[in-house]
Amino acid sequence: MRLVIIGGVAAGTKAASRARRVDPNLEITIYQEEPEVSISECGMPYLISGVVEYRDALIARTPEDFAEKDVEVLTRHRVEKIDPDDKKLVVKNLATDEQFEDAYDRLIISTGGKAIIPPIDGMDAEGVFVLRFLSDTDKIMDFVQKRSPKKAVVIGGGYIGLEVSENLVALGMEVTIVEARDRIGGAAYGHEVADRIRRHIEEKGVRVCVGEEVETLLEDGEGYVRAACFGEREIEAEIVIVATGARPESKLAEEAGAKIGTFGAIRVDKHLKTSLPDVWAAGDCAESTNLITGEPGWEPLGDTANQMGRVAGTNAAQGEDVLEFPGILNTGVFKVFDLGVAKTGLSEEEAHGLGFDAVSAAVESGSKAGYFPGGGRVFVKLVADGETGRLLGAEVAGENADKYVDICATALWGRLSYPDLVNLDLAYAPPFGPTLSPVIAAASVLANEFEKEIEGVQASE
Amino acid sequence: MRLVIIGGVAAGTKAASRARRVDPNLEITIYQEEPEVSISECGMPYLISGVVEYRDALIARTPEDFAEKDVEVLTRHRVEKIDPDDKKLVVKNLATDEQFEDAYDRLIISTGGKAIIPPIDGMDAEGVFVLRFLSDTDKIMDFVQKRSPKKAVVIGGGYIGLEVSENLVALGMEVTIVEARDRIGGAAYGHEVADRIRRHIEEKGVRVCVGEEVETLLEDGEGYVRAACFGEREIEAEIVIVATGARPESKLAEEAGAKIGTFGAIRVDKHLKTSLPDVWAAGDCAESTNLITGEPGWEPLGDTANQMGRVAGTNAAQGEDVLEFPGILNTGVFKVFDLGVAKTGLSEEEAHGLGFDAVSAAVESGSKAGYFPGGGRVFVKLVADGETGRLLGAEVAGENADKYVDICATALWGRLSYPDLVNLDLAYAPPFGPTLSPVIAAASVLANEFEKEIEGVQASE
Repeated sequence: MRLVIIGGVAAGTKAASRARRVDPNLEITIYQEEPEVSISECGMPYLISGVVEYRDALIARTPEDFAEKDVEVLTRHRVEKIDPDDKKLVVKNLATDEQFEDAYDRLIISTGGKAIIPPIDGMDAEGVFVLRFLSDTDKIMDFVQKRSPKKAVVIGGGYIGLEVSENLVALGMEVTIVEARDRIGGAAYGHEVADRIRRHIEEKGVRVCVGEEVETLLEDGEGYVRAACFGEREIEAEIVIVATGARPESKLAEEAGAKIGTFGAIRVDKHLKTSLPDVWAAGDCAESTNLITGEPGWEPLGDTANQMGRVAGTNAAQGEDVLEFPGILNTGVFKVFDLGVAKTGLSEEEAHGLGFDAVSAAVESGSKAGYFPGGGRVFVKLVADGETGRLLGAEVAGENADKYVDICATALWGRLSYPDLVNLDLAYAPPFGPTLSPVIAAASVLANEFEKEIEGVQASE
Repeated sequence: MRLVIIGGVAAGTKAASRARRVDPNLEITIYQEEPEVSISECGMPYLISGVVEYRDALIARTPEDFAEKDVEVLTRHRVEKIDPDDKKLVVKNLATDEQFEDAYDRLIISTGGKAIIPPIDGMDAEGVFVLRFLSDTDKIMDFVQKRSPKKAVVIGGGYIGLEVSENLVALGMEVTIVEARDRIGGAAYGHEVADRIRRHIEEKGVRVCVGEEVETLLEDGEGYVRAACFGEREIEAEIVIVATGARPESKLAEEAGAKIGTFGAIRVDKHLKTSLPDVWAAGDCAESTNLITGEPGWEPLGDTANQMGRVAGTNAAQGEDVLEFPGILNTGVFKVFDLGVAKTGLSEEEAHGLGFDAVSAAVESGSKAGYFPGGGRVFVKLVADGETGRLLGAEVAGENADKYVDICATALWGRLSYPDLVNLDLAYAPPFGPTLSPVIAAASVLANEFEKEIEGVQASE
């Protein structure tokens, strides 16, 4: 029995490990286009500035590690075609340019995502980069070392653009973020959090232009980028990083006839099986279910890819539907300079857009007991269904953002309502937070409002 | 309509604030035996060493603050008797020793807890203290300033004993903890966590004696404590802090005929109403429901008291059962030196003791992505019902203990099972944790075991 896995980053390698443990006799091969597998892509922005000191630290496991577990890893090999009827693959060895055929009994597609490249003139100037693969990081670091750029433009103010900006500032650069939307932080965040991010990064010296699309990148006489232009403006730029998001890399699957879903990701059932026989998909290339809406969802993040890989690897190894992947909440967190920013579920705008009668409450509180030294501030906003009270989402900015968002994500997972959260028995001690968690405090504000509507009670503390 | 509240720390003051907002016309009086109200008792250990610099910082609100909201606060007043038939109280003004009668329409009892004093000879020596009230802190600080003790014995190795020990070490004292049980950290923790606490505090120079009960405290010629004795041992002690736990202060209610529950706490229904007409109880003096077992529970902690006060205050102000207090999970966290320790629900031992067919899994993991600088270690243990998979509890020790326990507490609140937790969509970014939260990792270990039993799949990563 032969399992082939296309793509060896988070989902693919996890699937391989699971499959090997589930079935010690399975023949397993991973084809990976890049020179390495098992890359911690989330750490790449931090490699640029040296926060992560060694490139190898981002490579969790090598082909040799996999060989020890009897998993064959072929790097610099691109699968160019899937023939689902004959269960065959056309593979190209990128080192030799040779093409060959391979066969599978079961197949996992984990081809990941690809960077969205906006239609900007001058994208091929020297010094213009995306940050998609570890090889991109190599190119950026090489360029920085050789040219010592002092002025940077980052196109896109989502979390990757923000993380990159922080690391360019750490290298001493003057950074300008140009974002097409009306806010930074990505489309998912409401204005309260977006404004907090903006204030924080401006304090750190980053310039922010929102509602602007870079139209042209100008070159100097030697072909190096020298400026980014939009509208009437021309901003000096000796290096440009394009971080305008990603989309699923589903072309190979689509060409093989697999159904493609709403987000351009490969459609899968709850067992992560595609529409093709004996073919599963996992990670950034695969669709998921948004557990708030019950509609198709997409969450291109490393932890989700890992979890999907576990499910796909188990099911593919067993050849049957053993495990389910229930879906996603679009939970995420990022750090930009000293600010933690996190979200789970829907923002208020998203909830309204989807037709929910959404209500919300926000609190800003200390991150320790008021009298305890060393605390910071944190903003927590809850969004709930006004009819049923069911929690729909949360946004957090500040200290312990990761903690508060995880409480809310778990509450969403358990389909809790805000009245549930008011009495939630969370852990309290002065060094860890205020007496009542800001999650409880925000839920109490909602509960007080809710009582007001149904019981005539005054809004209360 | 007159609402009287007996006891003005967490539950009582919260109840008063809620009642005022629910009904602006209610007459509200708080009787408080101690000289202050609204005391952040959880901060008291940190006042001793100066981590909390000012005593006033621990007083959230003064009688004057309450007067502004038309809530009368009478400090140094002890309610000595409740007559539930005539709805009358006998009150003693401790400043003048005068007794007087008062009447109520509705009553909230929030008399808190009292320190357990073990039967030790020599407890009345100078330099022997409990840490129950802010006035105890005053006495300790006064003694420390006058006598500069260098050797301390802390009787009791629960969380308060540990917090006190840390703060005495910060004052330069040599500290020995003597604990009657076979472990420190309190009865609630399993050996894995208890051992981690012990190793940590021993590294910080604290001596630990477990399985030992102090029998005698010896005095010097001037009546000051000089040693603590047990078995053959005599340990030098210029100051002794007794921190052997607390029990509910329910005597007043009991004498009035209120039903008392399993833990010696005042029995209440889900609306926090006692067995006496128009009398509610909240906080450390009141019983609760353990949401894991459905049996009576007791959680003498400030956050729970606050939540109970909200419910009791609302219901008492309205005179009807508007809000419910569902119960508790015995969630708690404490810090001792640099170690965070936390628990929610049942330990494995507790679960077995209660007849659950409990299974468990523990992981030790980094607190950031492996390649990200500055991370620490964290131990997470999950306990679940082997039959249903339902999560029963969690113990955590290490970095971000508060975060991981809150995820588990929320999961318990939502009655999630460990298979639910495997795919839980938590927030991940390299500065905030490993790709998969240790909660997910521990749940995966359980799920792999579970699959093994029902599906014949090998144990997997």
